[in-house]
Amino acid sequence: MLPVTEHPQTIEEFRATIPALRNKAYMNFGAQGVLAQETMDAIGLSYSYVQEHGPLCGQMFGWLTEELRRTRKEFADEFHCAPEDIALTQSTTDGCNIVLWGLPWKASDNLVITDAEHSGVVASTAQIARRHHLNLSICPVSSQSDQQILEWLDKNLTGKTRLFLFSHILWTNGKTLPIKQMIDLCHSKGVLTLVDGAQSAGVLELDLPSCAADFYAVTGHKWLGGPEGIGALYVTAEAVEKLEPTFVGWRSCTFDAMGSPSGWENGAARYEVATAPVPLLAAMRKALTIRSRHSSAAERYQRLIDQAAKLRKALAGLAHVQCLSSELPTSGLVSFKVPGTSSSRLCAQLEGQQIIVRTISSPDCIRASLHYFTSDDDIGRLVAAVEAAGKS
Amino acid sequence: MLPVTEHPQTIEEFRATIPALRNKAYMNFGAQGVLAQETMDAIGLSYSYVQEHGPLCGQMFGWLTEELRRTRKEFADEFHCAPEDIALTQSTTDGCNIVLWGLPWKASDNLVITDAEHSGVVASTAQIARRHHLNLSICPVSSQSDQQILEWLDKNLTGKTRLFLFSHILWTNGKTLPIKQMIDLCHSKGVLTLVDGAQSAGVLELDLPSCAADFYAVTGHKWLGGPEGIGALYVTAEAVEKLEPTFVGWRSCTFDAMGSPSGWENGAARYEVATAPVPLLAAMRKALTIRSRHSSAAERYQRLIDQAAKLRKALAGLAHVQCLSSELPTSGLVSFKVPGTSSSRLCAQLEGQQIIVRTISSPDCIRASLHYFTSDDDIGRLVAAVEAAGKS
Repeated sequence: MLPVTEHPQTIEEFRATIPALRNKAYMNFGAQGVLAQETMDAIGLSYSYVQEHGPLCGQMFGWLTEELRRTRKEFADEFHCAPEDIALTQSTTDGCNIVLWGLPWKASDNLVITDAEHSGVVASTAQIARRHHLNLSICPVSSQSDQQILEWLDKNLTGKTRLFLFSHILWTNGKTLPIKQMIDLCHSKGVLTLVDGAQSAGVLELDLPSCAADFYAVTGHKWLGGPEGIGALYVTAEAVEKLEPTFVGWRSCTFDAMGSPSGWENGAARYEVATAPVPLLAAMRKALTIRSRHSSAAERYQRLIDQAAKLRKALAGLAHVQCLSSELPTSGLVSFKVPGTSSSRLCAQLEGQQIIVRTISSPDCIRASLHYFTSDDDIGRLVAAVEAAGKS
Repeated sequence: MLPVTEHPQTIEEFRATIPALRNKAYMNFGAQGVLAQETMDAIGLSYSYVQEHGPLCGQMFGWLTEELRRTRKEFADEFHCAPEDIALTQSTTDGCNIVLWGLPWKASDNLVITDAEHSGVVASTAQIARRHHLNLSICPVSSQSDQQILEWLDKNLTGKTRLFLFSHILWTNGKTLPIKQMIDLCHSKGVLTLVDGAQSAGVLELDLPSCAADFYAVTGHKWLGGPEGIGALYVTAEAVEKLEPTFVGWRSCTFDAMGSPSGWENGAARYEVATAPVPLLAAMRKALTIRSRHSSAAERYQRLIDQAAKLRKALAGLAHVQCLSSELPTSGLVSFKVPGTSSSRLCAQLEGQQIIVRTISSPDCIRASLHYFTSDDDIGRLVAAVEAAGKS
């Protein structure tokens, strides 16, 4: 099949095709992205196709296999890696769990995470540490310089450290970690690396082989604009050899003529399990494809951080606002607080005005997420509302 | 919210609302069920609702939580259990994996399955046995009498046996196992029981507390008529205490004001992980609800086995056909073969005539799955085609 050539489309034209943007200033992409009408249409078309031709028969089993293959390929193209390096998952957390539970842990092994991981990952690492009697260490990164982070790792990674799990972009304040240097340092000490890419996939242009991570987990439903429940886990060919499948089903294996399991699926697909909402995959691919209409990944990233910088600057100009994110944002996340005002109350108040952001519990703040197609008008509405809240 | 009162609807009226039945004789419900138009419409409506009101904000997080709660409740009503006993999963295999990996295995513990488990479950039990150094035993059930099965268990369950995993209805030949006696015998020996309900949920009227299984895993996308990728795992309150969560995420835990994990979710919901295709849940509930229009579960089951018996009888009347399923079917599965003819070739030939069944590898056969709404005409088409194939 020839690659689809996407026609150019202005950002204004694109915004007009996104139902979620019609009635609100949506700046919560770090929690969940928005579906373009075409992406939503792809969902309906898939379900209709499946019911008309199946739902399940010889022909449709072929279709299903091809849908899985095509979607792995599309994620692989996005991340500049081989399709064999991609497992389709449900979410970033799902991908992290596959890695956490697939390593050959021994009691008293050391697992390292950072002080700014997502609550779901904090919970999953706490559980594996408890069940496998691991030592869990916390690498401080939230307000450390790159140099300080590397020094901490150099000092604290030991012969017992098996895995370092860290986010590429911190979900709390939008800081981007120097992952290449961190990974190189880990590898020099024989430590595997699992990157939580929840806030980076669809933001940064990711060349996963170049950044040398062993494992990189992403979701499709935040910055990539796909439906909820579809994610991807990147596992290098070398790391596949070190990572056992844990949850296993008919998608993990090859089978002989008697229907008995005869081996693992080729590459990372062995970490896939069983029945999944395959009709959503066409929508995921549509979401991945649409973005190529809006210039290059590098240009989209530039626009995204330009928008984030505009918001950051405007908020910093309000005397009652305290910004937690860098003056020069490297991601779409801009976190701030209004000392003396409850972040939850302010967030709910903004939602009442159809301005959608979210709170973070620790550090207590409000987090706005700006995409490359966030408008100046949306930014202006948020700033004006925060300004007004300071006066009330 | 008041329970929805479903208006009565004849089976013919219902069939007319199912797109998949319009152009074919579909008898493959054991692989995947069909979506009624209303169920498909519920999918589109949910996605539109989510995009209009969110996709994610304070209000929509409340909606999402409520969708999860309502869907657990609907499954619980279906199985006559408490909503706290239900975890939402992706599939039967997913549910089985949650149980397999959540038990505190010790090396040389014994895990028992039957000789007629689904390939996905065979693969997952082989993997846990390999990684935890378990002894895996196979209880023969395919062509054994109830008495023989119970005798085997009585003789072979040992002090080392932790879990017996078996299907309620065998996916190969449609045989129904005497699960209450099997479970009672297991419990008398301190053995936990995990029932694979892939072929029983939506067929039998299931009262899970009465059958006393510790764990019962089902999928929504076969006999229950829901979308692919939604399943349920039943875990009794007592069994929750023995089963650790393995894959963990924000849905598994409660969190304190600082956003740190503070405990497990109440009941079986702790086995849920993270982001999932929540907009499909409304369709799952719609599918569960629709069936109440067609009399009681007992009457639907009677009609289903009546249809299976008709097919079984007609096939037995063909000299060249050998039936593998019982003369008096207790499920919708009717398996048969034509000695001297390749089952795969015959199955493909039937598919070419828009008659949809599937092959089973071991024992080599063709399996037709008949639902309560399967028509006499569909049965007649299959019988005529198999008869014609015998003459060609």
